[in-house]
Amino acid sequence: CPCPLPSGDTALSRLVRRLLSARRSLDLCLFSFSCPQLARAVQLLHRRGVRVRLVTDAQFMGLHGSQIGRLRHAGIQVRHDQHSGYMHHKFAIVDRRMLITGSLNWTAQAIQSNRENVLVVEDAEYVKAFQDEFERIWEEYNPANYTFFSEKQ
Amino acid sequence: CPCPLPSGDTALSRLVRRLLSARRSLDLCLFSFSCPQLARAVQLLHRRGVRVRLVTDAQFMGLHGSQIGRLRHAGIQVRHDQHSGYMHHKFAIVDRRMLITGSLNWTAQAIQSNRENVLVVEDAEYVKAFQDEFERIWEEYNPANYTFFSEKQ
Repeated sequence: CPCPLPSGDTALSRLVRRLLSARRSLDLCLFSFSCPQLARAVQLLHRRGVRVRLVTDAQFMGLHGSQIGRLRHAGIQVRHDQHSGYMHHKFAIVDRRMLITGSLNWTAQAIQSNRENVLVVEDAEYVKAFQDEFERIWEEYNPANYTFFSEKQ
Repeated sequence: CPCPLPSGDTALSRLVRRLLSARRSLDLCLFSFSCPQLARAVQLLHRRGVRVRLVTDAQFMGLHGSQIGRLRHAGIQVRHDQHSGYMHHKFAIVDRRMLITGSLNWTAQAIQSNRENVLVVEDAEYVKAFQDEFERIWEEYNPANYTFFSEKQ
């Protein structure tokens, strides 16, 4: 594989290890997702039987280097917004108990070059607020609820 | 003033109220800052004698609508990175005790159109991690430490 999982004690390897601790579910709400190592970790979880759901931004999912197509092809459920504004969240929830959130977009550029923060929170109050937001978005972006331009007229 | 402070119970008005609770210090670490209402709140604190320090991204501070020039003109201390990567944080620390952080850039577009999150945290462990990062950046971006291309050769 051209993109081995990161080893050692880097910020990226720590993030991957948190993700790989998932046993039942991984809910991802990501503005931009182009980092191959993170995509590989998500695919690995999917193959292990972890229920992965991914929400992303419609305008960024088609950009060069995006991993969204690859993840869809692997059978992972992906939903996206249909607004002109951005779906700008960048968080993950592992097993409905661990929230990983911050300024970091899941791109190679951000990981390599930017000054970023990632918070890992297990406080139930915070996790619930983000899990509720995830469930709202997941329903709102259900393709069954799509509206089309012709219907808006 | 063309940009009154927001009233009512919107996400923006709640954010402004948290900021205006500052009595001694406000440390801002913001990738992008173009929201006039938030700039007005920061200026108000500066006029009240609160010590305001602002770190921002060099590539975004000059963009159309940026409030950085206005804040500098008002006498607020501003420092910026000098890297090609982004200074991508978006956090504020009020009185070294309340951390406000998340996905939200302080732009009108983000506030009006995007799906975003803002966490308010008073847990000392989290606040300290971000305060330490702020102090590191503040020193690193001290103009006295600037290097120039000619020196790198």
